[in-house]
Amino acid sequence: MDKKLIGIDLGGTTTKFAILTLAGEVQQRWSIQTDVLNDGNNIIPNIIETINHHLKMYQMSPEQFLGIGIGTPGSVDYSTGTVESAFNLNWDRPIAIRQEIEAGTGIKVIVENDANVAALGERWKGAGDNALDVAFVTLGTGVGGGIVQGGHIVHGHGGSAGEIGHMTLDPAGYQCTCGKKGCLETVASATGVVRVARDAAQEYAGDSQLKAKLDDGQDITSKDIFDLAKQDDPLALRVVDYVCNQLGLALSVVGVTLNPEYIIIGGGVSNAGDFLLEKVDTAYQKYVFPAVSKTTTLKLATLGNEAGVIGAASLVLDN
Amino acid sequence: MDKKLIGIDLGGTTTKFAILTLAGEVQQRWSIQTDVLNDGNNIIPNIIETINHHLKMYQMSPEQFLGIGIGTPGSVDYSTGTVESAFNLNWDRPIAIRQEIEAGTGIKVIVENDANVAALGERWKGAGDNALDVAFVTLGTGVGGGIVQGGHIVHGHGGSAGEIGHMTLDPAGYQCTCGKKGCLETVASATGVVRVARDAAQEYAGDSQLKAKLDDGQDITSKDIFDLAKQDDPLALRVVDYVCNQLGLALSVVGVTLNPEYIIIGGGVSNAGDFLLEKVDTAYQKYVFPAVSKTTTLKLATLGNEAGVIGAASLVLDN
Repeated sequence: MDKKLIGIDLGGTTTKFAILTLAGEVQQRWSIQTDVLNDGNNIIPNIIETINHHLKMYQMSPEQFLGIGIGTPGSVDYSTGTVESAFNLNWDRPIAIRQEIEAGTGIKVIVENDANVAALGERWKGAGDNALDVAFVTLGTGVGGGIVQGGHIVHGHGGSAGEIGHMTLDPAGYQCTCGKKGCLETVASATGVVRVARDAAQEYAGDSQLKAKLDDGQDITSKDIFDLAKQDDPLALRVVDYVCNQLGLALSVVGVTLNPEYIIIGGGVSNAGDFLLEKVDTAYQKYVFPAVSKTTTLKLATLGNEAGVIGAASLVLDN
Repeated sequence: MDKKLIGIDLGGTTTKFAILTLAGEVQQRWSIQTDVLNDGNNIIPNIIETINHHLKMYQMSPEQFLGIGIGTPGSVDYSTGTVESAFNLNWDRPIAIRQEIEAGTGIKVIVENDANVAALGERWKGAGDNALDVAFVTLGTGVGGGIVQGGHIVHGHGGSAGEIGHMTLDPAGYQCTCGKKGCLETVASATGVVRVARDAAQEYAGDSQLKAKLDDGQDITSKDIFDLAKQDDPLALRVVDYVCNQLGLALSVVGVTLNPEYIIIGGGVSNAGDFLLEKVDTAYQKYVFPAVSKTTTLKLATLGNEAGVIGAASLVLDN
């Protein structure tokens, strides 16, 4: 019988699991809550327990698996499979993920950064169409990224390759959490879109539902802003046009640097769909080198939440 | 006896040749004029003739060579070793470089783009210190680039990876030859630096030798501008500070995308040396993601004109 893969997507609130065939077909999926209490000390034992429990339930043995791939927040030491620290898991010290899960399950483990794992998933089974060269940008609470080159993740000398969210786009722009100013993340993340809207509202005098809601002190999300823009709210359109222009500029730079076959846009903000993609692509075409515009295509991610477990499982095939 | 390598750097005015050991030591070097007359039809026959002549002179046979690597202007079809066109060689049609030189010399040939070959040379025997991940930017008449990832050149899906010179930095900037506006090349190439100076002079009212020379209609080169800046000419300093700031911003973007061990700055403009490097690095440090600033270091190229033949020879080892 063909061996199977396990993919794990370790997040700050839930941890997702899947059992996949070597061809990447998801056969089982489940998830557990990530228990970040007790300094996150329960996280790895809980992962081991639920894997062993599910293998027993499905009457499977460790020998039936080629390996476990896991995507995790935080910076990873790839030589040891250790996470150096991950604040949203309350890990303020190195956690030897690979060693602990291998010991607890008897299955080989590969550890990778979560944004990179999502890039691998989209590249393998999503919008990337199994192309060799793909760049991935995820627009969530922050903006993350992953670069796949020749089918493999690019880690870079210090493990920080693909930090597209911290590309400086506007040296006079908003202060970023990283300490610099004007990072892509300050305008293109879910929080960034809202920040741009709040600022734009203060200088906007016309009629706008978005302005009325903001002036009224209502909680506004990036989804609200895109929804209002789709209804031609003039302030919301102005905000969305600005954000998409900056994102198109950033992706044009990724395009001329790497000329990947696809640049894939994922994460919560990308749920705005073709409305977002078309605006980003208009800006991208304006800013990118002509030979690259013909050969590097922007696409929306297609796997949603499943990119993580699928990409994590693919790590096993790559190692 | 160990086999040898031949490296060729095919340029618009001269073609340089070297015979190297497998360790990259240059044992012989010579050059010929590139004859671009007659639609560039003499270029490849001349290359074949001079190689065969030199092998006879050194009493060497084709069997003693592992291969020939050649760096060429124009866009290369890597599957066939054909240059699709190269305007500065008067090639307006595809030229089957690999096939012709292999037939004429009896030695295996690998063809690569000239900026990529220079990147490989600096990476192997120059500032790159044989690191696996290196980015290279060359500031000449234009601005070119090459990305080395895992020791191999990144070509990208359409062969346009590393087109760092056509990164859009300022959407409201100068018109570029590529059809877009505000490319790095429009300010950081030798002609770009002069363009910035001419514009800055028109708005400058203070005392400045540079302004006097420009107002006087003298021909000014980028070297003149850097030399005057080193002598504290206030307008020249303003120009150099602006150019270095834009270059530092561009390299910060390469840094967060790929986090290479080194980003190497070469080409004629880089002859300004540490004076340039320090200013570019100051801007780079301001704009780059902190984790990248610690692990991706800017350096000046060290091989000068020899980067091409050395990098070209290294292609043979890589294939």
